[in-house]
Amino acid sequence: MGENRLALDRTEFEGMLRATESGYWDKHPFHQRMDAGELDPSQLRLWVANRWYYQRSLPQKDAAIVANCPLPEIRRRWLPRIVYHDGTSDGDGGCARWLVLAEAVGLSRAEVTDERHVLPGVRFAVDSYVTFARTRPWLEGIASSLTELFAPRAMATRAAALKRHYPWLDHDALTYFDSRIGRAREECADALDIVLSHCSSRQGQDAAVRALEFKTDVLWSMLDAIEHALRERR
Amino acid sequence: MGENRLALDRTEFEGMLRATESGYWDKHPFHQRMDAGELDPSQLRLWVANRWYYQRSLPQKDAAIVANCPLPEIRRRWLPRIVYHDGTSDGDGGCARWLVLAEAVGLSRAEVTDERHVLPGVRFAVDSYVTFARTRPWLEGIASSLTELFAPRAMATRAAALKRHYPWLDHDALTYFDSRIGRAREECADALDIVLSHCSSRQGQDAAVRALEFKTDVLWSMLDAIEHALRERR
Repeated sequence: MGENRLALDRTEFEGMLRATESGYWDKHPFHQRMDAGELDPSQLRLWVANRWYYQRSLPQKDAAIVANCPLPEIRRRWLPRIVYHDGTSDGDGGCARWLVLAEAVGLSRAEVTDERHVLPGVRFAVDSYVTFARTRPWLEGIASSLTELFAPRAMATRAAALKRHYPWLDHDALTYFDSRIGRAREECADALDIVLSHCSSRQGQDAAVRALEFKTDVLWSMLDAIEHALRERR
Repeated sequence: MGENRLALDRTEFEGMLRATESGYWDKHPFHQRMDAGELDPSQLRLWVANRWYYQRSLPQKDAAIVANCPLPEIRRRWLPRIVYHDGTSDGDGGCARWLVLAEAVGLSRAEVTDERHVLPGVRFAVDSYVTFARTRPWLEGIASSLTELFAPRAMATRAAALKRHYPWLDHDALTYFDSRIGRAREECADALDIVLSHCSSRQGQDAAVRALEFKTDVLWSMLDAIEHALRERR
């Protein structure tokens, strides 16, 4: 029976995708406390060191999507994301900007890049995301990136909160967010257009929504692992 | 015992890699006949239509290597290959130039891109190559590309042979080779440098040589399938 359902029209389908925002990680208690200025420096450091593992996995995740996609025009549109993360030289790109933030919260470059603070739960969640991109159809990989629909607003809130509540943070170190917000808007418009245009069956649309729900679970689970570690330490 | 053998020095290791040239496909009877001007138009067409499948798989193969590589500096060096194949717009790039050649030998664009002439044996060989890049360590993926060490000379011979022996071919359609030869020289110098620098154990060096031998088998097997099909048709 599920096979025969009619495809949603573009607006309905977009509505289904956007409805997954209810599980987006800006609602997680850890992010809520961050945005309310309630984290101490060591808690902020744990977050930054763990999210590094996510950031540094993104270029490989995006390359896996390109590797699975037989359509040159989609590969061309996706490739700049890899360049965005990796930059064009050492010290350039999104990952490098995350390291600037890491140093501003008091982490050494070495203790971030050797990943000694990365929690197993964070590693498993992020690895699942990369495996998803490697093993699922490219269109589901692209759909899973659509958490970017919700990111710009959450990041703007976060950047303002970090500036207001954490005065010991060098504001110049927040360039990751400043440069990311506009970029995320462009990227998610492009990804949304690809997903809306290429998911032509109801089955494909459902798979895209599930991919996006999976991704909100990945992000949420990272914060769960951080929350749990902090509770254990208390 | 194999585990304890000393690593070869750079020159010896490079010698081992270069020795695989003995199995490179320029020595295959089909290529030998092509270079001697002995193919009729339909045979040349079968080769072009089948090699399309190889060409169009290369961007996905290269993206798989990027997806497996945790080193940003290597990803940055490898990414331009994907851009080379796919170009930056429709009609641009190595794959598009192969289609120009296809039209010059009398194939329609449609019959090439719908892959109706692609032989199962060619498909299996090329798919194995992509699977190799997806599933083996990135350094072996890069080592497997080193058939490019032998390509510029073979391609120069082929381009000259095509111009001399196949006068009905529009010489402008041979830009694939003209543009590829210089590029292959640059790419293989870079890939060779990566392999020589990163294969530091004898085990790693052996794996690199095996990867390159595997690749020569892939290419050779493509021509075997073409030869066999031509024999069946006679």
